[in-house]
Amino acid sequence: MMTEKDALLTLFNDIMEEATEEELHVVRTLLESARAVQTKKERTYLHGALKYSGTLTGENSYEATIRLSPFFLNNLNILHGGIAATFADSAMGTLVGLKLPEDKTSVTSEIKVNYLRPIKGEILKCKAEIVHRGKNLWVTESKIYDDGNVRPSIFSSASFFVIRKR
Amino acid sequence: MMTEKDALLTLFNDIMEEATEEELHVVRTLLESARAVQTKKERTYLHGALKYSGTLTGENSYEATIRLSPFFLNNLNILHGGIAATFADSAMGTLVGLKLPEDKTSVTSEIKVNYLRPIKGEILKCKAEIVHRGKNLWVTESKIYDDGNVRPSIFSSASFFVIRKR
Amino acid sequence: MMTEKDALLTLFNDIMEEATEEELHVVRTLLESARAVQTKKERTYLHGALKYSGTLTGENSYEATIRLSPFFLNNLNILHGGIAATFADSAMGTLVGLKLPEDKTSVTSEIKVNYLRPIKGEILKCKAEIVHRGKNLWVTESKIYDDGNVRPSIFSSASFFVIRKR
Amino acid sequence: MMTEKDALLTLFNDIMEEATEEELHVVRTLLESARAVQTKKERTYLHGALKYSGTLTGENSYEATIRLSPFFLNNLNILHGGIAATFADSAMGTLVGLKLPEDKTSVTSEIKVNYLRPIKGEILKCKAEIVHRGKNLWVTESKIYDDGNVRPSIFSSASFFVIRKR
Repeated sequence: MMTEKDALLTLFNDIMEEATEEELHVVRTLLESARAVQTKKERTYLHGALKYSGTLTGENSYEATIRLSPFFLNNLNILHGGIAATFADSAMGTLVGLKLPEDKTSVTSEIKVNYLRPIKGEILKCKAEIVHRGKNLWVTESKIYDDGNVRPSIFSSASFFVIRKR
Repeated sequence: MMTEKDALLTLFNDIMEEATEEELHVVRTLLESARAVQTKKERTYLHGALKYSGTLTGENSYEATIRLSPFFLNNLNILHGGIAATFADSAMGTLVGLKLPEDKTSVTSEIKVNYLRPIKGEILKCKAEIVHRGKNLWVTESKIYDDGNVRPSIFSSASFFVIRKR
Repeated sequence: MMTEKDALLTLFNDIMEEATEEELHVVRTLLESARAVQTKKERTYLHGALKYSGTLTGENSYEATIRLSPFFLNNLNILHGGIAATFADSAMGTLVGLKLPEDKTSVTSEIKVNYLRPIKGEILKCKAEIVHRGKNLWVTESKIYDDGNVRPSIFSSASFFVIRKR
Repeated sequence: MMTEKDALLTLFNDIMEEATEEELHVVRTLLESARAVQTKKERTYLHGALKYSGTLTGENSYEATIRLSPFFLNNLNILHGGIAATFADSAMGTLVGLKLPEDKTSVTSEIKVNYLRPIKGEILKCKAEIVHRGKNLWVTESKIYDDGNVRPSIFSSASFFVIRKR
């Protein structure tokens, strides 16, 4: 009887047999993401697959980067708008989480994303900023830049609802 | 000398050796997505990984479903808000694409997403509707429902900029 | 010594002396609004000037109308977008207020307005609907129609933060 | 037979007879606005009533102020959210108009407004900024501050569709 692991190995080998360069790249991204979560190096698969990293840059500001894999392209072969929203949401939410008191966390209440120009290149940078720290709602904005671009490709604002940590 | 394929096999085997049920599930989702694109059954990896499908339900309406893999959860173990945005964007964009004349396509200009309640269950349904068909901009709205829920979990509106097909 | 009332009468007479039809119409709208608040027939000047009225049309729906005065046109001589936002905000906020428990009221947390086509005619209708009734946030949408139009001219969504009545 | 002007005078006198300080203030604001349009000092009644003024402050930035009359308060006696949207829309739209080429103008395509805290005081300042200058759409953001406040009370973003001047 074929186990799940055997079945996956067969699937893996089928892919490998005729894999293009791009497909090898995608499989590497995905397996590395799975491995990163398994070995506790990442908390979420998505951040692993996006190679997400970020750092505070001021009292109200934070900067994050991701590295785009073909996994995240849409059928026009440009970054799927929803993934750009995912990146903006992650960066703004992480910033809020880092600035909230220890016993609080937050969930996204609403986000708006303006797509300004097509994303080019492989490395994306997101600069996020806190606009308002309310009792119940924090409001942030962010801009996403692609390789070497001084003008933003994506502009976003969002509200985060503050909740007590469980 | 170890080839890229050998390196990927080693990585694959490392994951398999200590894989939990959830990790096997994630790896299956990701490999199936890669295979679906390779065999031209899917045009994008993301739709493959989301097991996206959809159908027109009226002159101005469209319904899509996805099946959630743990790959798409955030660090609170609920659906990453950005993936919900991805789903809404895909459903609304596909609807617009199906209703535009043959020689036109569209890109998302802006999207706003309201998160109403945490997503539960595995199957999500998105009901999208065209609100306005302009010369340059089409405006749509959509609601996402989780398993058996009659009330929406996510509400979204978006503008699509109409462009000539290349 | 000239009192404030004398000064206002002089100003009033200056306007009257050379008033066009449109200017007479504007002055009537504004004075009627002031008088309506003074005699407690209206609670706000704005609603008076807009001749705002509305009624519940279902468990989650509400319909309001306003009558446009030239007072509210912009420099392109079409309805100022902000006044359309005011109308949508009023209709959605009133609907929420009517459906909240007796001891609760709400304030607008965020609103997004999509302008679909120029407003024509004098009477505008807004159809508002509750999308979500949360513990802290209610989410609504609305569409504004102008004279005899079956397609919306303005599409809006908003979140209202629920607060205890003072 | 009573003419329209006689009827308006009667209405005016009725208001004056029992006018409170606030009502005198409102009537003055409204009549001054009507007079300013009549004498071509203002192009729109709304800007007249808001005593709107603004100035460019940089290559991409603009600052405007308004003076709040009780005319613009809602039934909680704070600035009506829609008027704040009107102010933000005016400031951002004016900035875009000033920076577009001579033969172009623009209409608001969409606006989102986040209400951060209740507006206090009488003088409001709006700082608007261009985020993106596209071929068809310009995107802007703005923050509104009340008397002496260093933190914004209202945060807004908007898209303007560029059109040829008629």
